[in-house]
Amino acid sequence: MHPNSDDNWPRRVAILGVGLLGGSVAMSIRRSRPETVFVGYSRSTDRLADAIRRGIIDEATDSIGDACRDCDAVVVATPVDRIAAMVIEAAGHCPDDCLITDVGSTKSGIVAAVEKDACAAAKFVAAHPIAGSEKSGSQYAVANLFDHKVVVVTPGKAADSAMVQRTDRFWKMTGGKTVTMSVADHDDYLAAISHVPHLMSALVARMTPPVARSLVGTGWKDITRVASGDPEMWTAICRENRPAIVTELARLAEELNQLRSIVEDGRDDEMASWLAEAKRIKDQG
Amino acid sequence: MHPNSDDNWPRRVAILGVGLLGGSVAMSIRRSRPETVFVGYSRSTDRLADAIRRGIIDEATDSIGDACRDCDAVVVATPVDRIAAMVIEAAGHCPDDCLITDVGSTKSGIVAAVEKDACAAAKFVAAHPIAGSEKSGSQYAVANLFDHKVVVVTPGKAADSAMVQRTDRFWKMTGGKTVTMSVADHDDYLAAISHVPHLMSALVARMTPPVARSLVGTGWKDITRVASGDPEMWTAICRENRPAIVTELARLAEELNQLRSIVEDGRDDEMASWLAEAKRIKDQG
Repeated sequence: MHPNSDDNWPRRVAILGVGLLGGSVAMSIRRSRPETVFVGYSRSTDRLADAIRRGIIDEATDSIGDACRDCDAVVVATPVDRIAAMVIEAAGHCPDDCLITDVGSTKSGIVAAVEKDACAAAKFVAAHPIAGSEKSGSQYAVANLFDHKVVVVTPGKAADSAMVQRTDRFWKMTGGKTVTMSVADHDDYLAAISHVPHLMSALVARMTPPVARSLVGTGWKDITRVASGDPEMWTAICRENRPAIVTELARLAEELNQLRSIVEDGRDDEMASWLAEAKRIKDQG
Repeated sequence: MHPNSDDNWPRRVAILGVGLLGGSVAMSIRRSRPETVFVGYSRSTDRLADAIRRGIIDEATDSIGDACRDCDAVVVATPVDRIAAMVIEAAGHCPDDCLITDVGSTKSGIVAAVEKDACAAAKFVAAHPIAGSEKSGSQYAVANLFDHKVVVVTPGKAADSAMVQRTDRFWKMTGGKTVTMSVADHDDYLAAISHVPHLMSALVARMTPPVARSLVGTGWKDITRVASGDPEMWTAICRENRPAIVTELARLAEELNQLRSIVEDGRDDEMASWLAEAKRIKDQG
């Protein structure tokens, strides 16, 4: 089989972790490829039964081995701290030319861990679809989650170019736009545009005086929307991308100090420029 | 005339500053009081012509004196740094029993400045409807902007209880829910739930590496929405509420330092509790 030229590829896809992201991968690809069979793996039989009932997956199993056997592609869609181990386990069960990809929001730790296993490293091309929600669970999965969204592909050293092309093709099937970059760049950028902003959102929520909670307006509500996300999931992200997040938090603390002097000293012209620069960046693209 | 028992009150209302907020005040009250006449004041004749054309106001003038003459109520809806002077000017032109209120997001500076003028202080009851948008201009004014939104009323020392009741009645006509509190409490709470969150939103936008701007997801987009607001307007807010904002920024810097140690030291249990507390506050009400 030559997956890059085979119109039937992928015929069979394993989704390891049938939640918001895993479920949406299956639903999005199904729109244009109704023949593809999706097999879901979860530790929870309730979750699997629910995903079958909703038509998200065609088959369900609580065995990673059974899920991966005879698959053309495997998507690992668990919390970031469980991805690497699951990629390695999946690699031991799936065919040689099977692609393994993932949805993790951090990449360095996962790619480094997978690269210690030659078999897994050859099959794995890491990816991060920048799409999601503060919600979790397959009941929130939707077919258009990835449409026009960026999917960052971060190939490791062991992945050959055919496998990288296959990854690109796979993620385009979800409706996403793929962008390739290094693992290190990904983690630095995501610390700046996602992980630390998430922590700032949570910080703003935490700063709310209890008596003022009922006074909040739409600004507060938007800024704190993601603070509603799963604490365990975000703790795992902070652990996995710790160095980049710590660096970014330090940069933020410096910027905050400068801001504080501008306000405290009443340097209004500087304040207006400071805000105008933020507006310029926001209003782009 | 006894405004609190008079079903026809207010027969004539001046809107000083016909923008998003001023325009929405007129449109919201008009829904239930079609007989009330709204007269708009602006320095821009184009803006006035546009507001007349849209049916937001009935009459237009570029003279504060003409706008306020014979009015039952005057709403000052300009940027915060111009409110106090305009309240004082309006007080010199409007009838003795006329209510003057405002929409400013900061209150201490405005109330203190107005209290220096006995005539204005007797007519003025400050208010802050917690509603708005990153947009500005009467083209964004809508009749339901204040529906079910909190309107904070912060009476000064000189306002008698009849005038405060009238203010309450006026703002309820817009669809808002009124809450009364002291000027100092208002400014402290708003620094925590609006002004500093706004600065954090702008800070997150400013931290975005240019090359990563195209990668941002819905989290970044929500967190930074208000960073698109008018820099001059927010510079004025920072100037007007400087002491409370500086105090709040200092508190935030301390919290940020604690957060940084938690991440840096990898204290994952604390991280999860820290995030869970943010989620608890966010998920309330």
